[in-house]
Amino acid sequence: MTSRDKRYNEVWFTEESSRHLRLSLRVNRELVRKESPYQSIMALETAEYGRMLVLDGAIQLTEKDEFCYHEMMAHVALCSHPDPKKVLIVGGGDGGTLREVVRHDSVERAVLVDIDEEVINTSREFFPSVSCAMDHPKAEIRPMDAMVYMKDHKGEFDVIIVDATDPVDMAAGLFQSPFYRDVWDALSEDGFMVTHIESPFTDAAIMVPAYGAMKEVFPSVHTYLGFMPTYPSGMWVYAIGSKKHDPSEPLREAPEGLKYYTSDIHRGSFAMPPFLSRMLSGEEDVISNY
Amino acid sequence: MTSRDKRYNEVWFTEESSRHLRLSLRVNRELVRKESPYQSIMALETAEYGRMLVLDGAIQLTEKDEFCYHEMMAHVALCSHPDPKKVLIVGGGDGGTLREVVRHDSVERAVLVDIDEEVINTSREFFPSVSCAMDHPKAEIRPMDAMVYMKDHKGEFDVIIVDATDPVDMAAGLFQSPFYRDVWDALSEDGFMVTHIESPFTDAAIMVPAYGAMKEVFPSVHTYLGFMPTYPSGMWVYAIGSKKHDPSEPLREAPEGLKYYTSDIHRGSFAMPPFLSRMLSGEEDVISNY
Repeated sequence: MTSRDKRYNEVWFTEESSRHLRLSLRVNRELVRKESPYQSIMALETAEYGRMLVLDGAIQLTEKDEFCYHEMMAHVALCSHPDPKKVLIVGGGDGGTLREVVRHDSVERAVLVDIDEEVINTSREFFPSVSCAMDHPKAEIRPMDAMVYMKDHKGEFDVIIVDATDPVDMAAGLFQSPFYRDVWDALSEDGFMVTHIESPFTDAAIMVPAYGAMKEVFPSVHTYLGFMPTYPSGMWVYAIGSKKHDPSEPLREAPEGLKYYTSDIHRGSFAMPPFLSRMLSGEEDVISNY
Repeated sequence: MTSRDKRYNEVWFTEESSRHLRLSLRVNRELVRKESPYQSIMALETAEYGRMLVLDGAIQLTEKDEFCYHEMMAHVALCSHPDPKKVLIVGGGDGGTLREVVRHDSVERAVLVDIDEEVINTSREFFPSVSCAMDHPKAEIRPMDAMVYMKDHKGEFDVIIVDATDPVDMAAGLFQSPFYRDVWDALSEDGFMVTHIESPFTDAAIMVPAYGAMKEVFPSVHTYLGFMPTYPSGMWVYAIGSKKHDPSEPLREAPEGLKYYTSDIHRGSFAMPPFLSRMLSGEEDVISNY
């Protein structure tokens, strides 16, 4: 070889956050790639973000930042409810939200219902720090259709967390009002429903209708915000529908051992930038007015 | 041509957020590319984020999301200071921070000192919505070295905002304690200094020492957080050094017409996730513990 710059063998995973925006992570090693009846599943070891789970080309989690998302999915509702005993997780087959739910002493039973057993198996095999609560005594893992499960369990749950993939194909229904009515029916009389509604920068076309659909069903819907570096734009919006309680004020301290959530983060996350309030209320897309 | 999928002519700009992470935006058109005595300057029209200013390969702003950064750089200090009359902006040659500063009625004079006149000229020519306050009666534009300027203006400013590029080459000194001492000297006796200290996910090696250097100089240093989609990881950390006042509680309402900042956003932005508090206090890099 003549003198020249050293060259590296590089593999990159690239997510198309939109047709016009891409996030790429360098990959050290492919761990597994398979097709379930529902989606393509891939686990990669990245150079900087630890292991990464990808479903149908969309980043679901990385070991480095998944705590940001899973803590905000679980603890806001669980710390605002006066006595959450039974919790249902719809989707969330990786187990990250479940891991956070079982941290709460008041929780007696946490049911994870994900339609895709292969996601559950992949997480058990390759993401032990995420799936670690699947064998917890409070946990019950049900690989099945959550719509079917909820129709058989009306009025049972204090908190239902909808931890869905992006609303395309099989998950599209999980962002619409008929599904939210099923959630309403499966909640106890003072229950909370939590979900994420994506990003105002990348997914306004998902966020605004999903928020509207929740408002058709719940008398009170609040939104809150969290950082999530490997999700599109890093600005992630969560929505919480309530039958009775105010979710914006925590009633108790956070469980031990958290990395993202605190009572102050909880309170602060409900502050909405004006551009986002205007988008959610259906006014023009103020982001694009440059 | 035989039958095949339609192909598009695509141009992408890619920023290396780190050696292992890249953000790419699709480009419709190159507006200008030039070399100043200090750096490479490029203006591109992107497909989704409006026009974009790039300095030495690093995204400085896009028209779509620059308000997130510039509002948080300006309004937190300006709304917490009892009577900010004179404001100095170090760097910030695009004029975005200046635009926010002159919104405040109490401000009588806002001086922008950027060493690179070509950045100022480029913003005037290609980013009118960002540079629009450069001819404001309160504004004074000084293309020169801020260190030199500050030595001639001791004790003059109520708020100094350090709106620097990443701390490499010429900007490296702007994240170190000798520079912060010059800032201290240029502040009035109850002044604030604001700067950004990058992201805990991508730039911990910058963030932690910069925060430490500010603490060597200011008796009180607070950090606050803001979303910024096109900056690495989207989670941006700001630091505010204070001689006297508490910056975490706004004393007055936000100016009219803002898109990101509110008093509630102000209060909420000071809530720190535990992983970040631990990083700032010099404990181990808890992010990487997977």
